[in-house]
Amino acid sequence: MKELLGKQRAVSVEEALMLIFNNLPARIPPSESINIEEGLARILAEDIYSREDLPGFDRSSVDGYAVISSDTFGASETMPLYLEIAGEIKMGEIPLERLTRGKAMKIPTGGMLPEGSDAVIMLEHTAQIENNLIEILRPVAPGENVIKKDEDIKFGELILKKGHKLRPQDIGALAGLGITEIKVFKKPEVAIISTGDEIVPPTKKPLPGQVRDINSYNLSSLIIEAGAIPMRLGILRDEYELIKNTLKKACEIADMVLISGGSSVGTRDYTAKAIEELGRPDGGVLFHGVMMKPGKPTIGGIVGNVPVFGIPGHPAAATICFFNFVKPVIKRLSGQNFAEFPKTIKAVLNKNIPSSPQRTDFVRVKIKTEGNTFMAEPIFGKSGLITTLVQADGIVVIPPERLGLEEGETVEVILFE
Amino acid sequence: MKELLGKQRAVSVEEALMLIFNNLPARIPPSESINIEEGLARILAEDIYSREDLPGFDRSSVDGYAVISSDTFGASETMPLYLEIAGEIKMGEIPLERLTRGKAMKIPTGGMLPEGSDAVIMLEHTAQIENNLIEILRPVAPGENVIKKDEDIKFGELILKKGHKLRPQDIGALAGLGITEIKVFKKPEVAIISTGDEIVPPTKKPLPGQVRDINSYNLSSLIIEAGAIPMRLGILRDEYELIKNTLKKACEIADMVLISGGSSVGTRDYTAKAIEELGRPDGGVLFHGVMMKPGKPTIGGIVGNVPVFGIPGHPAAATICFFNFVKPVIKRLSGQNFAEFPKTIKAVLNKNIPSSPQRTDFVRVKIKTEGNTFMAEPIFGKSGLITTLVQADGIVVIPPERLGLEEGETVEVILFE
Repeated sequence: MKELLGKQRAVSVEEALMLIFNNLPARIPPSESINIEEGLARILAEDIYSREDLPGFDRSSVDGYAVISSDTFGASETMPLYLEIAGEIKMGEIPLERLTRGKAMKIPTGGMLPEGSDAVIMLEHTAQIENNLIEILRPVAPGENVIKKDEDIKFGELILKKGHKLRPQDIGALAGLGITEIKVFKKPEVAIISTGDEIVPPTKKPLPGQVRDINSYNLSSLIIEAGAIPMRLGILRDEYELIKNTLKKACEIADMVLISGGSSVGTRDYTAKAIEELGRPDGGVLFHGVMMKPGKPTIGGIVGNVPVFGIPGHPAAATICFFNFVKPVIKRLSGQNFAEFPKTIKAVLNKNIPSSPQRTDFVRVKIKTEGNTFMAEPIFGKSGLITTLVQADGIVVIPPERLGLEEGETVEVILFE
Repeated sequence: MKELLGKQRAVSVEEALMLIFNNLPARIPPSESINIEEGLARILAEDIYSREDLPGFDRSSVDGYAVISSDTFGASETMPLYLEIAGEIKMGEIPLERLTRGKAMKIPTGGMLPEGSDAVIMLEHTAQIENNLIEILRPVAPGENVIKKDEDIKFGELILKKGHKLRPQDIGALAGLGITEIKVFKKPEVAIISTGDEIVPPTKKPLPGQVRDINSYNLSSLIIEAGAIPMRLGILRDEYELIKNTLKKACEIADMVLISGGSSVGTRDYTAKAIEELGRPDGGVLFHGVMMKPGKPTIGGIVGNVPVFGIPGHPAAATICFFNFVKPVIKRLSGQNFAEFPKTIKAVLNKNIPSSPQRTDFVRVKIKTEGNTFMAEPIFGKSGLITTLVQADGIVVIPPERLGLEEGETVEVILFE
């Protein structure tokens, strides 16, 4: 059921996100099979259970002698015990015979324990006396210096969960289990429509009054960074039918649509009207205006199954809007579990930052080091300037209930990736 | 000049890194030209100066009326001033005429200011009285609601520095300046040689005594994450000539070589011997053994111009070794500036961690949330287990001077990416 809350008044950041999430259709993203070599940072579309034990056999974790642990009990430097060398175990090979009482077999790190043996004594705790005789200089406990056959991973164990974003060690574990093909969710495709009579492509020299398209390049890279695939659908003139028809087509081919630009009231109205008209009766505009700075003119809605955002034209506003709304929705569309830790650092503010009540402020800051302390310097430029973002290392959030932050205060800085 | 320090005794983590850095040849990495659409996370090989002003013309930052600011001085809600509407400025177009005293022109956000005008009054601070007459309800200062023609970026300004890793906003700024082709450093190629008679590829079912290759898959993904290109050169048997010849070939085709495996003393000796023999007289082994846990058997050296690492066979040790030594060297070989912030979070330890003196301990931890606090739970498994890494979210470092960390202590956790 569609909630109409956001159409009447500007909503808070949390309300806006909730409106989008509550109206996203429950849909399992499509999946594809890939080789683990292409798996880094992809999202698992299946639970991975082990089909075998790892390492699969009792394995020495040191260079030494495989022994029967009880044969070493009571041994010490002053009262060593003696064992006969019954042979040497070769890496990667099955020990040729069973180990019996009073005997030891030389074993390399990673070597397979012979039957009968239950521990390994490190080379440095032995001394070779004769060709086939060693002194044992200390006792070893059962299982000491041994990795048991299922100690790393047990047959049937759940190793990695559906929705997990694969890291290098996960790829390693899959390789270790012989799982080289995995099912991952397809990356969502995010269409970007640029609007604005003044916008020209970066390859064109702008005439007076025109500017080049910054946002769809900034947004494309943000989309890639978030794990999705950008589709730039070009720059549209501010004409209602054109915007509406392009949005309609975009909703047919993409999993999400961003309409960028529309910084003037006229374009914003076109964007909202097109979302509303195409989205009826089940979708349409969910909110139009968010109590935040920059990014107030953000529009959120649903057309069919497809989330659509009207992204403010100012570059800094577009970026904040991306982090607050677009990225969380991309993660949802990617099938990703939400347990991810924010990449933040604590820093000390080196200037006061004023702020208005009832509005969430997102202040760009530059990080400097002073001795062992990180200092956060607010960048106060207009949100229409791309350089305020280029100079910034991250963002400090001022919640609605605070009237600014004070110099010397310790703040949490959300780092750009 | 080659320092021999590390050959005689195990070195500290800092000494090991210093030995490698001091012996890396001063070499500017080769560069290549790419389109900015492929630029995300690449390293700039040139300083980027702006060849024009951005936005290039005086631009309104609001919807309103372009005015001559002095025409508004003294205006108030109770004593409004009156201006004649002299026309409307269209987005992306040059205003048709000069603004003269007593007049105003309607202007959209992003529109070009007409000659003669020096400020914009917001729509909501005006009231339309007649078709061509507005009331001005408050004064505007010179420059108010205007982005000056070079306010974002000035002609000739240094925008991005050589060695900078490109972020989405940087790509946006380049697009805005019309710079669509850029020179970036080529990604370094890192060869991985796996050694071990017991190692089989992940596609093969291991016989008893054999295990699948985990490390070269873990390392490949770590290399990609660090911005380089992995080249897996296969799995070698533990034969000295084979290892030496493969290392020689690898040093000819790659920018860096990792010899993985060699967990047993024998293989480690082969690796060190091959590095030493091929590296003479100017290079060779720089250190053999680092006072850290896990990862003690790490070997570092130089063959010709190429840094070579002997990476311990235990997966956790291999990962720690990568973060400590391989990644910083990859960044150097990538031409990347070192000003990057560590991705860490503060967490409270929920268990004591013992540690030995004179050794740096790298303890894997899992992060849990308790209320608003992050809790770090140490994972105490053997470093030979890949699962200890799979369960971990990051690493806590215990420096050599500390004898362990205590439950309840706040620690900094270096997050896996």
